Amino acid sequence: MSGLTLAEAQKALAAGLKKADEIGQPMNVAVVDAGGHLLAFARQDGAIRASIDISQRKAVTSILMAAPTGALTALVQPGAELYGLEQLSGGLVIFGGGIPVERDGEIVGAVGVSAGSVEQDTVVAEAAVAALKRSRARAR
Amino acid sequence: MSGLTLAEAQKALAAGLKKADEIGQPMNVAVVDAGGHLLAFARQDGAIRASIDISQRKAVTSILMAAPTGALTALVQPGAELYGLEQLSGGLVIFGGGIPVERDGEIVGAVGVSAGSVEQDTVVAEAAVAALKRSRARAR
Amino acid sequence: MSGLTLAEAQKALAAGLKKADEIGQPMNVAVVDAGGHLLAFARQDGAIRASIDISQRKAVTSILMAAPTGALTALVQPGAELYGLEQLSGGLVIFGGGIPVERDGEIVGAVGVSAGSVEQDTVVAEAAVAALKRSRARAR
Amino acid sequence: MSGLTLAEAQKALAAGLKKADEIGQPMNVAVVDAGGHLLAFARQDGAIRASIDISQRKAVTSILMAAPTGALTALVQPGAELYGLEQLSGGLVIFGGGIPVERDGEIVGAVGVSAGSVEQDTVVAEAAVAALKRSRARAR
Repeated sequence: MSGLTLAEAQKALAAGLKKADEIGQPMNVAVVDAGGHLLAFARQDGAIRASIDISQRKAVTSILMAAPTGALTALVQPGAELYGLEQLSGGLVIFGGGIPVERDGEIVGAVGVSAGSVEQDTVVAEAAVAALKRSRARAR
Repeated sequence: MSGLTLAEAQKALAAGLKKADEIGQPMNVAVVDAGGHLLAFARQDGAIRASIDISQRKAVTSILMAAPTGALTALVQPGAELYGLEQLSGGLVIFGGGIPVERDGEIVGAVGVSAGSVEQDTVVAEAAVAALKRSRARAR
Repeated sequence: MSGLTLAEAQKALAAGLKKADEIGQPMNVAVVDAGGHLLAFARQDGAIRASIDISQRKAVTSILMAAPTGALTALVQPGAELYGLEQLSGGLVIFGGGIPVERDGEIVGAVGVSAGSVEQDTVVAEAAVAALKRSRARAR
Repeated sequence: MSGLTLAEAQKALAAGLKKADEIGQPMNVAVVDAGGHLLAFARQDGAIRASIDISQRKAVTSILMAAPTGALTALVQPGAELYGLEQLSGGLVIFGGGIPVERDGEIVGAVGVSAGSVEQDTVVAEAAVAALKRSRARAR
């Protein structure tokens, strides 16, 4: 498994923090490896502290579910198939902001972002993930 | 760090307990510092003991979310943006009774009250927070 | 069971805090009821925050073991009979500073003190417990 | 509250990682604020993952105990005064590698390092803390 390196995680982190600055919303950004273990994290000045846990758990959820956290939201509502999922596996996050990083069809890590609206969190997480793709494109 | 002192926390606590006496509802009242660490606590005779944890967790939630706990209620309902939030970050309280204490635009602590109705809890928490503001007004 | 009232717990707390001031060591002081549930707590300015948990857990340990926490120390050393006790029952404290409050041969509550040396913690806890005895002597 | 900023935390982190590179031991480095809440983290390629938790917990322990974690080691041995301390307050680390960051006599944050020997962890943590002091010296 050629998982993310710290250098890659820091590149993703920096891209996420830059996007957070652009949209003017201080964020917590976490990057985990293919096993869901933390590689890099930053909390910007003014970002809420509940999101220290939430951002990391979004990244871990993306690994454990092999999906973006936003894809879970509809599935866990009352009456839906996975109602109650969120309290399993140590606590999963069921709203957007966690996105797996794929490479050659394999998940090699994930990004989790929290402190803004779900839309803002998602935009920042996408920027973090995109930075890894650009970086690899250049490397080829 | 100009966080709350014990003297201030005890003043807030006393004001909360007095208000609880006035409305005839025994309460648990907790005061935490800017980092969410407990400074002062009291449980009145007859107040339910589940609220020992709930009152403290309301205060901590106010610190971690930088908001009154009552502001979370609408956001975490089924179908709403933060549905599932309550089981994150060690367990957050998503109904009213936790209020941050602000000073010069910064959160320096929080009060959490529990054992009555949410409306009663909120009234008592507001009385506790207000006592700190009066105290500072006099000091100037 | 005629357990401690909040008024009694606050009297014990005040006596503990006064003693802490006298010996010049900021303390965390907790008072619990006969069931081990928190009644009153205060953390003095400058007292370490690890002791928020430790003081409360000392009081709870006194209730669960029906003994002062200092009585456990010898029993839990390597090779001694209760080696490993401290990680049971949710986490027990095995050094001094927790003392049960007895009344008519029954344990009606407990005091836990933490942040100084074990000797200092014990002195402050004893002062807190003694205040309850004086108070009852006067009441008769 | 003049706690650490993210910029300061990242400076400390970078200095710690640089020192880890110099001594050839991949490390986990964590920086927390005055309340013990995570600000910045990095795990170097090859560093063990148990230390994700240990490094963060070392930093938190430094905050909760207001002391370097290495100062606890002698106090918690069998027969010593605080034997059993490590399983209290959510789990404290009782060997070196966590160091508080002081400013004007007040603790404003802490660094925790883990993955090498305790001596290596301590050297890296000291380098991280020293970077903050140099930075402030220049700023004056």
